[in-house]
Amino acid sequence: MIKTKAYAAQSATTPLQPFQFERREPLANDVVIEIAYCGICHSDIHTARGEWGPATYPCVPGHEIVGRVIQVGKKVKRFKVGDLAGVGCFVDSCGKCPSCKTHEEQFCTDHTVFTYNSTELDGKTRTLGGYSSHITVKDKYVLKIKKGLTLERVAPLLCAGITTYSPLKRYGTKKGSKVGVVGLGGLGHMAVKIAKAMGAEVTVFSTSPHKEKDAKTLGAKNFVLTQDPKNFASSAGKLDLIIDTVSAKHDFSPYLGTLKIGGTHVLVGAAPEPNQVAAMALIYGRKNLLAL
Amino acid sequence: MIKTKAYAAQSATTPLQPFQFERREPLANDVVIEIAYCGICHSDIHTARGEWGPATYPCVPGHEIVGRVIQVGKKVKRFKVGDLAGVGCFVDSCGKCPSCKTHEEQFCTDHTVFTYNSTELDGKTRTLGGYSSHITVKDKYVLKIKKGLTLERVAPLLCAGITTYSPLKRYGTKKGSKVGVVGLGGLGHMAVKIAKAMGAEVTVFSTSPHKEKDAKTLGAKNFVLTQDPKNFASSAGKLDLIIDTVSAKHDFSPYLGTLKIGGTHVLVGAAPEPNQVAAMALIYGRKNLLAL
Repeated sequence: MIKTKAYAAQSATTPLQPFQFERREPLANDVVIEIAYCGICHSDIHTARGEWGPATYPCVPGHEIVGRVIQVGKKVKRFKVGDLAGVGCFVDSCGKCPSCKTHEEQFCTDHTVFTYNSTELDGKTRTLGGYSSHITVKDKYVLKIKKGLTLERVAPLLCAGITTYSPLKRYGTKKGSKVGVVGLGGLGHMAVKIAKAMGAEVTVFSTSPHKEKDAKTLGAKNFVLTQDPKNFASSAGKLDLIIDTVSAKHDFSPYLGTLKIGGTHVLVGAAPEPNQVAAMALIYGRKNLLAL
Repeated sequence: MIKTKAYAAQSATTPLQPFQFERREPLANDVVIEIAYCGICHSDIHTARGEWGPATYPCVPGHEIVGRVIQVGKKVKRFKVGDLAGVGCFVDSCGKCPSCKTHEEQFCTDHTVFTYNSTELDGKTRTLGGYSSHITVKDKYVLKIKKGLTLERVAPLLCAGITTYSPLKRYGTKKGSKVGVVGLGGLGHMAVKIAKAMGAEVTVFSTSPHKEKDAKTLGAKNFVLTQDPKNFASSAGKLDLIIDTVSAKHDFSPYLGTLKIGGTHVLVGAAPEPNQVAAMALIYGRKNLLAL
């Protein structure tokens, strides 16, 4: 077994504390990674605090994991010792359902094994995440990382990066697209950078006036302070796509008003409580409210 | 001027009462219709009661209008006296904005003139709807109706019909599609009939047990009584498309759970108050919440 140092929450109300446990030795298809960096995602906080339903403790969060391969199982061909590797939000799935067979393992209808606060396919063994020194993961669920990249900057791409890139790409962001980003935190700053890199004109919506400078440094052209509903008027009917990263309950309706006809509002933040949306805000202008 | 008898609401709290007013004589592009039937839409009630914002009184509702042409303006070529004609939810628009130029006049960004409780393009003249004996409408906004059809059955197609046909068609309903219809009222019964005619297997969701018989007579295969949340389990992950006709505040989340991955929940009812939706219900399985 592989001795592993970690930080774990022992309850929904106590801070993370040092914790030790053992990872499994690699099975035939496993890769063992010595973790170099792990990003901090709001999901870690939601989960450790039990905000997305009861968690099982000790809970070791972390699903933006990068490091170096230190052991491989005997059937592993994609990785060898010394390779750089990454692990994102999930580490296994049934492999047999329609989702798994169409490369959408994240929507496995039988059993998606999340990187932490989940169980392995045996339904019993608890998964523990990347706030730890080592992790053992089936090779198919491990990502290759190119040599020469700055590892601490790669880590957040494994959740925040793919979560914002995916809808930007899926809904056709290109040169001249008008993209709104709601919230400038972990996901939001990534959305701004990626949308800008795709050629979009970016508008950041935030409750925090002091974030305007950062928003513009990251590539945003416009900044809308959302505390005053009147500020939305400058963006009315202008945007093609909104990436909404807010992780607390809010009303989608004013944002829907900033979309062009047929525009799309994508949720990538998951508030623990239900959000609000006015039917009329969707109906007028055939707006789309999606998640990815 | 054309003397017109009508039923009007004089306030948000009083019942409809007989009312008389005058329609304009036809301008060059106008058609005057003697109204034979007018459907009753929940929008009429929402509006007359001021539930969608303050209405202007007297308010003559009605936007599912069918009748016979009795006069035409001198430039009108599409209609002649004696033709059957229909009028739906709107009777004019600016004609110049991008929406109007792409045959989406209902999303006119300048001034959609709704059939009632709206103003003509002059911004002053109030529009009055189809609970009346006559109506004068610009020919471009009048629909032709084929001779031989049963007029009282055509009327509801002008709002409830197109409102449910449009998303069923847009989202590719075909033989074997699994379609859910939420609510079995004016729109819901139409959605069931149209979806069934397109070859879909229809599931009706309703709070009213006594509607099961009607649902099945209209063509539904399955009926889910929504009072008990456990009843949703039989439909979990099964539907391609939901047509949600409910006109009161509700939570979309349990319905999203009945969709397949990538499935679409379309709102066609517009509750006066904000609805609820859990972000997770959208995120898990990449669900779409749309309106049309």
